[in-house]
Amino acid sequence: MKIAIYPGSFDPVTNGHLDILERALKLFDKVIIAVAVNSAKNPLFSMEERVQLLRAATKRYSHVEVDSLHGLLVEYVQQKKATAVVRGLRAMTDFEYELQLALMNRKLFEQMETVFLMPNEKYTYLSSNVVREIARLGGDVGKFVPSVVVKALKQKNRS
Amino acid sequence: MKIAIYPGSFDPVTNGHLDILERALKLFDKVIIAVAVNSAKNPLFSMEERVQLLRAATKRYSHVEVDSLHGLLVEYVQQKKATAVVRGLRAMTDFEYELQLALMNRKLFEQMETVFLMPNEKYTYLSSNVVREIARLGGDVGKFVPSVVVKALKQKNRS
Amino acid sequence: MKIAIYPGSFDPVTNGHLDILERALKLFDKVIIAVAVNSAKNPLFSMEERVQLLRAATKRYSHVEVDSLHGLLVEYVQQKKATAVVRGLRAMTDFEYELQLALMNRKLFEQMETVFLMPNEKYTYLSSNVVREIARLGGDVGKFVPSVVVKALKQKNRS
Amino acid sequence: MKIAIYPGSFDPVTNGHLDILERALKLFDKVIIAVAVNSAKNPLFSMEERVQLLRAATKRYSHVEVDSLHGLLVEYVQQKKATAVVRGLRAMTDFEYELQLALMNRKLFEQMETVFLMPNEKYTYLSSNVVREIARLGGDVGKFVPSVVVKALKQKNRS
Amino acid sequence: MKIAIYPGSFDPVTNGHLDILERALKLFDKVIIAVAVNSAKNPLFSMEERVQLLRAATKRYSHVEVDSLHGLLVEYVQQKKATAVVRGLRAMTDFEYELQLALMNRKLFEQMETVFLMPNEKYTYLSSNVVREIARLGGDVGKFVPSVVVKALKQKNRS
Amino acid sequence: MKIAIYPGSFDPVTNGHLDILERALKLFDKVIIAVAVNSAKNPLFSMEERVQLLRAATKRYSHVEVDSLHGLLVEYVQQKKATAVVRGLRAMTDFEYELQLALMNRKLFEQMETVFLMPNEKYTYLSSNVVREIARLGGDVGKFVPSVVVKALKQKNRS
Repeated sequence: MKIAIYPGSFDPVTNGHLDILERALKLFDKVIIAVAVNSAKNPLFSMEERVQLLRAATKRYSHVEVDSLHGLLVEYVQQKKATAVVRGLRAMTDFEYELQLALMNRKLFEQMETVFLMPNEKYTYLSSNVVREIARLGGDVGKFVPSVVVKALKQKNRS
Repeated sequence: MKIAIYPGSFDPVTNGHLDILERALKLFDKVIIAVAVNSAKNPLFSMEERVQLLRAATKRYSHVEVDSLHGLLVEYVQQKKATAVVRGLRAMTDFEYELQLALMNRKLFEQMETVFLMPNEKYTYLSSNVVREIARLGGDVGKFVPSVVVKALKQKNRS
Repeated sequence: MKIAIYPGSFDPVTNGHLDILERALKLFDKVIIAVAVNSAKNPLFSMEERVQLLRAATKRYSHVEVDSLHGLLVEYVQQKKATAVVRGLRAMTDFEYELQLALMNRKLFEQMETVFLMPNEKYTYLSSNVVREIARLGGDVGKFVPSVVVKALKQKNRS
Repeated sequence: MKIAIYPGSFDPVTNGHLDILERALKLFDKVIIAVAVNSAKNPLFSMEERVQLLRAATKRYSHVEVDSLHGLLVEYVQQKKATAVVRGLRAMTDFEYELQLALMNRKLFEQMETVFLMPNEKYTYLSSNVVREIARLGGDVGKFVPSVVVKALKQKNRS
Repeated sequence: MKIAIYPGSFDPVTNGHLDILERALKLFDKVIIAVAVNSAKNPLFSMEERVQLLRAATKRYSHVEVDSLHGLLVEYVQQKKATAVVRGLRAMTDFEYELQLALMNRKLFEQMETVFLMPNEKYTYLSSNVVREIARLGGDVGKFVPSVVVKALKQKNRS
Repeated sequence: MKIAIYPGSFDPVTNGHLDILERALKLFDKVIIAVAVNSAKNPLFSMEERVQLLRAATKRYSHVEVDSLHGLLVEYVQQKKATAVVRGLRAMTDFEYELQLALMNRKLFEQMETVFLMPNEKYTYLSSNVVREIARLGGDVGKFVPSVVVKALKQKNRS
């Protein structure tokens, strides 16, 4: 069975993430979404909230698992006996960062393979950052995120 | 009448911003500079200070208005019946970020048009960030910002 | 009256070019499409054919003129008393080349202004090159170019 | 059975190509290398020679097939019932071109999926172009290409 | 005597920094490593710690000096009568930022020369950021930094 | 004695090349300009003409030699006992190509060092290509190339 890990901070999950997930499901028998702690960023949603939003947003897919990632990605990949890590590529700056990360991970674990997928062109502009900003300013994010996230963003910004 | 919005954080306004403004004034009948709240950055100058510095620095131009922007840019554009948004392009990383922003804004308001202008080559290196850093270290920023900003930076760094 | 020059090789004109043209028409009172001789490339369509295809493809727009450009762009801009040159930006490599060109042109004529516009996201992938290649291999280019160009490409590849 | 198409001009095949091939074999049950006619480039090796060099260089792998590609890649993918197309990513300029190509192909065939893999860091500098140039100037290309290609390059440059 | 300044935040020094240092030593008679205060970043190691780690890591080289940099780089360069500033180039985003910095510095001091060197390909992925993150998650950074830094990182993360 | 090789096609030499040369002369005791045969490009000026134009344009500098390069650069560097190769960096696309070349050269000769210098900002737009194109269209290239090249271009375009 070919397993892929799809790691990220997913703060919150967007339709662009789901687009990549669907593409990964055509290539792998199972995809584990691994929600990472990001030490550099101060998240809007807690780890638990991010995991729950992802579970709600992906419950219509079979062969998908949502998990939280606390240690090194390369150790997680070995523990789950995953064939590859999946990452979406939208833009140049993404690309460079992703390449650095993938090369670094290979140094830590040589069998580590990263598979880059390209989202639908209509998601090239989309990032969790921009979604959070629009929601904060009262804009409508219904085109960009699953409805469960729309609701969660409203609650966050109300409080 | 063709109106353009020139949005930014202008923390503080530089000669590069004024160069773009002058170019925009040749294309549009009126340019509204919209000083944005930037949730991600902790500004050196308050919104009020930034608006006042811009007003002082642009008082020699007619057909220029300085305003503060609290909500979504796309709503502001509609409210002002603006034909386009103006942005300066200096470098690659600028370019990518600007493109993402412009595409996102079009999703929120289809008639949104963004016009990219290129500053004089002597301003390609110039950013508000770098100006703040040089001023903080006691360097002379007189070549990079209007004299009213030189004075304001000195006061900030003295206190 | 604000006139813009939209220069290019248009070998052949694509829907992406027309998208940029429509955006330029919202900003300027008149747009002159200037079909350039490209010394470096061996064109598929002759200068005359390219001009004719553009005229056919743009006849539904008023305030558009199609012309051939034999000399320097900066001289043409002065002769036509144009306010600016219009260029579409799709990708990074575009961006860099366009910036170099625009800076060079400013050296030759200081008042030269270049206005960069961004096509609809669905045209970011589109170039005359790719259209020619697909047509050559017998693919359907109906989604990418005006119908008059579809016909012209069929005739070229038949002969 | 999951089949991948690995298209390219392979003029000639390098160790970087073989590195990507080996990575693709871990993800797919079969990889078909599709040697493309490149209308824009004047190849050093004929289509037949390139196919033969690839067959010799890949005979130690099972589940690999080498074929020549004369029509559109999207039609070939459908005919072979392939799950995805595989491409190596080395550098920024690669990346942009590859993204444009992949987006264009999706317009022609929506189910088209492109999987980007990253070669070992020691092949980031490597391209068929550079190999041809070094061989032409009498340099030793033994580190960069399979031995069968070393021999073929010597014969080409002798004649 | 030709002196070069090698400025940076070195938080902490990596093997990639030492690789650049060794290359600089082949070009210059003396290299002064200038550890900068970075107002934007919250460092893991204090200025003093960073200087000490660098001293320990570079004691095997002669013609190297480690210093702390509190003011403007351009003033430091003049004070030390340095011929040039040395910077490592790894990636695109590096490149753009470095170019902006170098141009800005030339505005402040026209004789300022920046020499860009390229590290060994095996360090292209390496940054102090990534090293800190791996150490924080308990990963082994022994391949990436001098042993004195491995020890210092362990102490930081224990506390 | 520290010798640098400054290789290129110089078709023709521009003021940007001379700017880089002057910077290199501050770092090295001698600079050898090595005019390369470029198999891919069809040059405007013959190898001999390019060498002669460079000699005329650089005769005011001491410690400069102009030579033609027929073999591999790495062999030339060893033969001349050069410390480094010098290259100018203007733009992103330059950067990537230069990095690939430099990495490749290191594979062929490990001691090969490449030193990247940045021209004055006013030459960032300048390339031999653009100069040839402007001259061909009858434009004035006096700001971009030495006077001896202005004359040579006029003669080429007259014939």
